[in-house]
Amino acid sequence: METVSMQNLRFDAHGLIPAVVQDAETNQVLMLAYMNAESLQLTMETKETYFWSRSRQELWHKGATSGNIQRVVEIRVDCDADSLLIRVNPEGPSCHTGEQSCFYRAYKS
Amino acid sequence: METVSMQNLRFDAHGLIPAVVQDAETNQVLMLAYMNAESLQLTMETKETYFWSRSRQELWHKGATSGNIQRVVEIRVDCDADSLLIRVNPEGPSCHTGEQSCFYRAYKS
Repeated sequence: METVSMQNLRFDAHGLIPAVVQDAETNQVLMLAYMNAESLQLTMETKETYFWSRSRQELWHKGATSGNIQRVVEIRVDCDADSLLIRVNPEGPSCHTGEQSCFYRAYKS
Repeated sequence: METVSMQNLRFDAHGLIPAVVQDAETNQVLMLAYMNAESLQLTMETKETYFWSRSRQELWHKGATSGNIQRVVEIRVDCDADSLLIRVNPEGPSCHTGEQSCFYRAYKS
């Protein structure tokens, strides 16, 4: 499979790239969060997900407090190299509400 | 299921919200794109995906030229109401490269 490295990723003006997190076994989409270069590097080194919290403006180790860490199986890059797909084995629910996925509500116009 | 309406979505400073597109049958993640209020409304009305192209700065009917439209099955909203999950039945490949998914490459640090 073709690969993409850090220097070819297109981070946005804030140095961030959106990361879709997907359960590698069920294929359920769990959440969307943002990574900067540091959090991506930590994710690769530890094989656990790290993100950049835009609201708290700090590095965020997913599951550090809740215990619901996400073990990384693989990371994919899209055709424009401006978004990531992180396939994981989650230790528990990915949403802070206790739901398995953050996408537990329906849109209704 | 709990629902979220347009006025409760949190669009960003550019009036956009990221939308993860997933195959409703296989659960494969196909692409990540951005919607504004108008494209979301058109998506709901037509049950085909419309996005906002940030590079071309224009409304974009997915598949209008390629024929590879995406028929919308359901739209989910995440816990922060700042990202969408669009579950679709795609008519063909979702990537302009001809790949089924835009996430066809692996990240390698």
